[in-house]
Amino acid sequence: MIHIQEVVTRDGLQNEREYVPTEKKIELINRISQTGVNKIEVTSFVSPKAVPNLKDAEEVMKNIDRNPDVTYTTLIPNLKGAQRAVECEADEVNLLVSASNTHNLKNVKKTTEDTFESFKEIIDYLSDKNIALSGALGTSFGCPFEGNVPEERILDCVQKYIDLGVNRITLADTTGMATPKQVYELSSKVLDEFPNITLTLHFHNTRGMGLANVLEGIRAGVIHFDASLGGIGGCPFAPGASGNICSEDLVHMLHFMDYELNVDLDKMIETSKYLQTLLSHPLDGQIINAGKITDLHSVDGI
Amino acid sequence: MIHIQEVVTRDGLQNEREYVPTEKKIELINRISQTGVNKIEVTSFVSPKAVPNLKDAEEVMKNIDRNPDVTYTTLIPNLKGAQRAVECEADEVNLLVSASNTHNLKNVKKTTEDTFESFKEIIDYLSDKNIALSGALGTSFGCPFEGNVPEERILDCVQKYIDLGVNRITLADTTGMATPKQVYELSSKVLDEFPNITLTLHFHNTRGMGLANVLEGIRAGVIHFDASLGGIGGCPFAPGASGNICSEDLVHMLHFMDYELNVDLDKMIETSKYLQTLLSHPLDGQIINAGKITDLHSVDGI
Repeated sequence: MIHIQEVVTRDGLQNEREYVPTEKKIELINRISQTGVNKIEVTSFVSPKAVPNLKDAEEVMKNIDRNPDVTYTTLIPNLKGAQRAVECEADEVNLLVSASNTHNLKNVKKTTEDTFESFKEIIDYLSDKNIALSGALGTSFGCPFEGNVPEERILDCVQKYIDLGVNRITLADTTGMATPKQVYELSSKVLDEFPNITLTLHFHNTRGMGLANVLEGIRAGVIHFDASLGGIGGCPFAPGASGNICSEDLVHMLHFMDYELNVDLDKMIETSKYLQTLLSHPLDGQIINAGKITDLHSVDGI
Repeated sequence: MIHIQEVVTRDGLQNEREYVPTEKKIELINRISQTGVNKIEVTSFVSPKAVPNLKDAEEVMKNIDRNPDVTYTTLIPNLKGAQRAVECEADEVNLLVSASNTHNLKNVKKTTEDTFESFKEIIDYLSDKNIALSGALGTSFGCPFEGNVPEERILDCVQKYIDLGVNRITLADTTGMATPKQVYELSSKVLDEFPNITLTLHFHNTRGMGLANVLEGIRAGVIHFDASLGGIGGCPFAPGASGNICSEDLVHMLHFMDYELNVDLDKMIETSKYLQTLLSHPLDGQIINAGKITDLHSVDGI
């Protein structure tokens, strides 16, 4: 069974120019909750100044209809974020640090080491709360400043998460630098060294390799993948380039390759069409334009 | 060694709304000739009424600078097309028939069987000319009218080409319906049954699976792939969807996966940027927007 985890309302919307009204975000999440995904990254408890599009994080988190089969996770940058997540009764918090020191410094003005250190008080605070922990490792497949990030560094960072008690770990290809070969090699190595973690891969389609990367991840044994409806969530380094891998395109491919999936393809496509009504630019996804491979045409129709 | 065959000036331009002036087409082909590709589908000797963008087929074919390392091929629909190709001294002619009978009827008002029959006089005419033959099989991975096209039908059609003396055979995913699993299975079967043919795969990225399909083709043992600069060449069934797989995106992926390639990545990207100057819409390719994975950013630059 391949598990699709939806990140559109966090990683997707955070970079959108237009503000999506709170009630529309809630409606979008409620619809996603009915598609079969097992996890939704609802929002991010960051500073509203840093990410104005997610300034309504509490209101969204508190007002969605919870499906008991879905884990509602939220990204948190610090202790304050953790407190907000607890107050909103998120099911999980997602920590984030970049494997690349330069990227981490640029992102949060701390070294990778110091960010891991700062997780301790967060985890300590959460230890008696009813909330799960997951940890994402940004720039796992390359850094836009440093370039290649050595595998050893990734393995060290995974170990650091495990030492902190975090066993749900996401390798994130923050700016779309992963190649399929690299995905297979790194995922195999991480699963081999750390067989007890729950490993998620998070890809961007910045350079067109996103779906190929998923297939190589599956070949290596990974079964959890993040994706964003409509493929939104572009990166500031690559204006005009694609964003996150597109949920419905991914589900479409896996569905027609006969993988067992937790997601209903038609519901996913419908939900992406709803997302399209909330944004004024065309989505990156292919399927909402091209239709499914089973959507046949009439001979007289062209 | 993986061989990239460039189809932008035929499959790409044929569906463009804007007419690209003859001298610009020639300049584009001359630049492509220097990228390392071993084959260029220069044009199509069809009726100018059917494909107005290629009405200058003779003038283009006669005025390009020939690189002796490149095979200059042209698509021909009938005997007249073959005569035009011979007159222009094309290195190769490319025949085309759809495996799906419905698609073939719609496309050329003949059954698949009758089209194969019509190839005989073409091949007879060409038998004493210094020109190579290749044959493409449209809708090899699915038909937009019929849906699934049985593998047996594909194998029969390949056999028909071989019986006619055509040993360079292209399986074309005319409207972007192939899944990676299907590509692996069908390519394996064709190579297994017909080990002496030169097999090319021709994919469209209509549903986002194009690059993943190439990787599964390679895994099955295929080493020749068609691609179109900028990913142009969209299909009339899917307005807004992607066209052919994008040459520079494909070369970028394979280059950074350490495949031995016949093409220089930087020259390919440069040539795609030139193509962009000839068209008034943005190209589908990702790399010309996002840059290569080795194009790093300055820490102060953002």
